[in-house]
Amino acid sequence: MDKTKQYLSILVNEMHSVVCATLDDQNRPATRVIDIMLTDGHTLYFLTAKGKDFYKQLITHPFIALTGMSGGEGMDRMHATMQKKSISIRGSVECIGTRKLKEIFEKNPYMAEIYPTEKSREALVVFKMTAGTGEFFDLSTKPITRESFSVGAFEKTEEESHVPYLISLACTGCGKCLTVCPQNCIRHESVPFKIDQAHCLHCGNCFTDCPAGAVIRR
Amino acid sequence: MDKTKQYLSILVNEMHSVVCATLDDQNRPATRVIDIMLTDGHTLYFLTAKGKDFYKQLITHPFIALTGMSGGEGMDRMHATMQKKSISIRGSVECIGTRKLKEIFEKNPYMAEIYPTEKSREALVVFKMTAGTGEFFDLSTKPITRESFSVGAFEKTEEESHVPYLISLACTGCGKCLTVCPQNCIRHESVPFKIDQAHCLHCGNCFTDCPAGAVIRR
Repeated sequence: MDKTKQYLSILVNEMHSVVCATLDDQNRPATRVIDIMLTDGHTLYFLTAKGKDFYKQLITHPFIALTGMSGGEGMDRMHATMQKKSISIRGSVECIGTRKLKEIFEKNPYMAEIYPTEKSREALVVFKMTAGTGEFFDLSTKPITRESFSVGAFEKTEEESHVPYLISLACTGCGKCLTVCPQNCIRHESVPFKIDQAHCLHCGNCFTDCPAGAVIRR
Repeated sequence: MDKTKQYLSILVNEMHSVVCATLDDQNRPATRVIDIMLTDGHTLYFLTAKGKDFYKQLITHPFIALTGMSGGEGMDRMHATMQKKSISIRGSVECIGTRKLKEIFEKNPYMAEIYPTEKSREALVVFKMTAGTGEFFDLSTKPITRESFSVGAFEKTEEESHVPYLISLACTGCGKCLTVCPQNCIRHESVPFKIDQAHCLHCGNCFTDCPAGAVIRR
């Protein structure tokens, strides 16, 4: 199973209810819980009612960001927080009308409790993500883990999408960065040192403290 | 306990990890999980590291939207979805530097596992919401329940903040809206009918279908 398919399956089947951000009519972020109803392994589908601000916002600015969480259920708050896994996806969406609506109600029978009659479903429309990028983030491993993937038609290499800090050839191997990295994820077997991106918190300590200015921020 | 205090306490103590939206450098929404670290009963506090995109975005556009969820733990997906409660808050934030940082580490001991040394905490700064509005949403009741509240210095009446649909004096009492409302939350003891805002889904069916054009969208 490829990465995209794997993470979209977790999103639909395990997380399901996620938080989705759009822009309001003053171009400020707005968030609410939405359900990710379906995936075909490449992209994702959700629905809304035409009367909601959410619908207006999707039509005006068809670009969303969403994050789902899982893990830590039944634990106390402190341990739950450290067990959290999250998936964040950003990308363009388009309205596909009532296509897939029947399939959504079939695969998500609880929807019939919220919109019980055919009449009450009149306002519902389906949206599909056409192109986006995603990131999986796992706080339960030590050090933390992150991985990137693409959604829909989007093709961007991992290098391009989620790597804010890189160590350049200007690295002298002095070791200052090793003392400030909270994740101990700078590899120092050879010079230049190398940030292990899969475990980086993006805190920027190495960038700020490198005496040689060898850490590049992109 | 007032509403604001009650909902901020749920946010910090029960939900704790929430999804927060900001704008990126292309003015598009971006989301990630953040922890709501503290509340004083009026507002909320969180932190980030200066090296993160999140920090840059907060400084550039100091307005966030966030949503936390609880409920449904340990249930299968379908029942979990129907048990979800959420709290969404939107408002202006400001950076208060390292004020409250010590208190945050004291009250959230897990933070010492993520940022273990004093050195690794150098990049951390605290943000506070100065003025915002919130909404509690409960899908586990039938019909659903929603309630508004304010955060920090924000004072807006409930009427102003989250009431998109109202029935005007043009209502003839024909009863068409009653047949399309998925929540059965239109009170029809007298004309004009009245939407019970605490249970409204904002789907817009009554607005679309009223033959008298008596439903106002704000």
